[in-house]
Amino acid sequence: MSVKEEVRKMKLDAPFLAASSIETRNKALELIGENLLAHADEIFAANEKDLAAAKENLISQAVMKRLKFNEGKLQDVVAGIKQLISLPDPLERTTLARELDEGLTLYRISCPIGVIGVIFEARPDALVQISTLCIKSGNCAILKGGKETTHTNRKLFALIHESVIAAGLPANCMMQAEQHSEIDELLECHDSVDLLIPRGSNQFVQYIMNNTKIPVMGHADGICHIYVDADADQEKALPIIVDAKTQYTAACNAVETLLVNRSIAKEFLPKLYAVLKENGVTLRGTQEVADIIAVEAIGEEEFIEYLDLIASVKLVDNVDEAINHINTHGSHHTDSIISENEETVCRFMQMVDSAGVYQNCSTRFADGFRYGFGAEVGISTSKIHARGPVGLEGLVTYKYKLFGNGHIVNDYATGKKSFHFKNL
Amino acid sequence: MSVKEEVRKMKLDAPFLAASSIETRNKALELIGENLLAHADEIFAANEKDLAAAKENLISQAVMKRLKFNEGKLQDVVAGIKQLISLPDPLERTTLARELDEGLTLYRISCPIGVIGVIFEARPDALVQISTLCIKSGNCAILKGGKETTHTNRKLFALIHESVIAAGLPANCMMQAEQHSEIDELLECHDSVDLLIPRGSNQFVQYIMNNTKIPVMGHADGICHIYVDADADQEKALPIIVDAKTQYTAACNAVETLLVNRSIAKEFLPKLYAVLKENGVTLRGTQEVADIIAVEAIGEEEFIEYLDLIASVKLVDNVDEAINHINTHGSHHTDSIISENEETVCRFMQMVDSAGVYQNCSTRFADGFRYGFGAEVGISTSKIHARGPVGLEGLVTYKYKLFGNGHIVNDYATGKKSFHFKNL
Repeated sequence: MSVKEEVRKMKLDAPFLAASSIETRNKALELIGENLLAHADEIFAANEKDLAAAKENLISQAVMKRLKFNEGKLQDVVAGIKQLISLPDPLERTTLARELDEGLTLYRISCPIGVIGVIFEARPDALVQISTLCIKSGNCAILKGGKETTHTNRKLFALIHESVIAAGLPANCMMQAEQHSEIDELLECHDSVDLLIPRGSNQFVQYIMNNTKIPVMGHADGICHIYVDADADQEKALPIIVDAKTQYTAACNAVETLLVNRSIAKEFLPKLYAVLKENGVTLRGTQEVADIIAVEAIGEEEFIEYLDLIASVKLVDNVDEAINHINTHGSHHTDSIISENEETVCRFMQMVDSAGVYQNCSTRFADGFRYGFGAEVGISTSKIHARGPVGLEGLVTYKYKLFGNGHIVNDYATGKKSFHFKNL
Repeated sequence: MSVKEEVRKMKLDAPFLAASSIETRNKALELIGENLLAHADEIFAANEKDLAAAKENLISQAVMKRLKFNEGKLQDVVAGIKQLISLPDPLERTTLARELDEGLTLYRISCPIGVIGVIFEARPDALVQISTLCIKSGNCAILKGGKETTHTNRKLFALIHESVIAAGLPANCMMQAEQHSEIDELLECHDSVDLLIPRGSNQFVQYIMNNTKIPVMGHADGICHIYVDADADQEKALPIIVDAKTQYTAACNAVETLLVNRSIAKEFLPKLYAVLKENGVTLRGTQEVADIIAVEAIGEEEFIEYLDLIASVKLVDNVDEAINHINTHGSHHTDSIISENEETVCRFMQMVDSAGVYQNCSTRFADGFRYGFGAEVGISTSKIHARGPVGLEGLVTYKYKLFGNGHIVNDYATGKKSFHFKNL
């Protein structure tokens, strides 16, 4: 069957998943946890096949580490599922209840988005996290993981799918895509798919965004900034910058550009240079930065997302120049100010147009788990709908339900009746 | 100056508008109301020019009626502005406050979307409503109205812009586009524009959606349904259907397709036929409908958005068949069930995948004013971000603000510290 046909069947099942009780959805999550534990050996055996193939294909150590699905990772995903079960139902929540007139009552009620396609990197734990988030939020999910995890994902998906059916949820509420070519088929399914969440390289996400009519949630690049203000506690700034740059260099929330207040540059830059050198980080900077510390001088247009142990440095006169630089050159992901001046911090936080604006801490905190969302399906730099790490709340929308008793608009248009708008 | 350059300047002013106080934004609204009243004669004179041109161009009576901006319409928009002033600030609202760990506190705070382009029909009152909604919600607005209202809009915009500057808001926070060619320029401004809201014909909205990378909110078509259930109060159904079809035939929330439970068809269809004929409505229907009442038999593929005194009729076996028809052939706008059976109604409301799902009332209630939102910038059939009539709440997004005191991720990754996630 083609992806188009399968997705169309899924679309027909979506209202049944939307109407399923929280007991049934939690039961499915419970069965998934049990099923994964009961078949741990089969999962690990499948994972060994993927690891062996990866070794043969000379995959990098970093990717190998993400590929590996062992006892520890299994315990982590099962703990995540338990946490997800304990979270309140994100569906059927009333966010507005208003009597428009006698006997005419309006409710705004949360409901699933519908059919969501998630394309994610070669990480078996991601498949479990994403599918369970979708089940809890009542969304049908099309899952496409990295090709390096084919065997592990196939096994995990089969166990999850079995459990979902056993709990009584519709059989077509989830499907797996394995071939890269299926992504292009999926991009054509705007009649059936409500949202795409691509995770991966800038180039890949851009490709998805430019080749579909389906709404896309996610982020292409992550050029995160740290601004060290004139009123910064410099001793606080240094470990924060080291963490933001080195704790996980390849992450989208790692810092790429450091903005330093010109008034403290001569004092701060040498300390920054020393501590980053010690941590293996190479700095590059504008000419005036290169005049103070021994770094390569580059133009601002060369400030990029390095995803490596490199960072750009620029001096600014004040917080407004920092804000302007970030809004113009950043990617609206996560930006931090190091300052003890509350007024300056407030201005930075109000005016920087990013999903996350931080004071005196590392940009690496931008993450669904660290925000207490349990897990995330991705991080959104879009400003429409969900922003930042996207957990259950970002996976629901709402509908307006209006209950009347023969009410017609003409009575209100002609003045025979009038609205009284009483919030309940 | 090109649209691109003007919009870029607007983007730079957006953070200042975002950081403006509610007092300043309300002051601007107050001054707008006063300014419009003080220059009423000039507005009416400008409107006379548009009306004269429209007459020369043989514009239809319906359009002429919308074009006209007289004392009554002025009073209406000024009353709308007063209502808007009385509404609470949609910005800086805290929707999440959570201590992640000692000294590390996360807030989710509402903020403006940024720069919004609205393209709307030839209705001068729409220009006032849209611009004031954008000011209240802290959004920069690019306004492009119908060409038939050029003189009126130019005058209204000048008065509004004067007032906005007098209140102390940034000068570039609003601009007007007058030429149709400027729309195509605007579609290219994805670096500066955060959202487009096109209002108008299906074809026009489709054109916008297919020719820009900017997120688009709105609706292309409005194929609304009314399902008359076996348990319907038929006497209640008839006036609701008449209202939904005839109260404003050209509106997107007018009903186009009637689904009737097969078990009541022989009794209900003749009554429906009689009352609609009396109101000038022509019915068309499937062959089995044509076998009961004297209507033209058409295929289901011919069920369209008529925007005219015509409606399609089809028989269904039960609520599930009605839901399936609506989800497959509808436009996810607004659909109503006529039934006294609470269980059936509940199923319909949970499973119909539309922005508005109604019981026992007219689909024409889908409107920002009738929902008590004051005004609306449009009606959204999108499921991402705002859905249904879009007022102030749909014009804001949020950002995560994280306040730390030297917090780094490595302490949590290595287990030296752990999150405690305490909601405040």
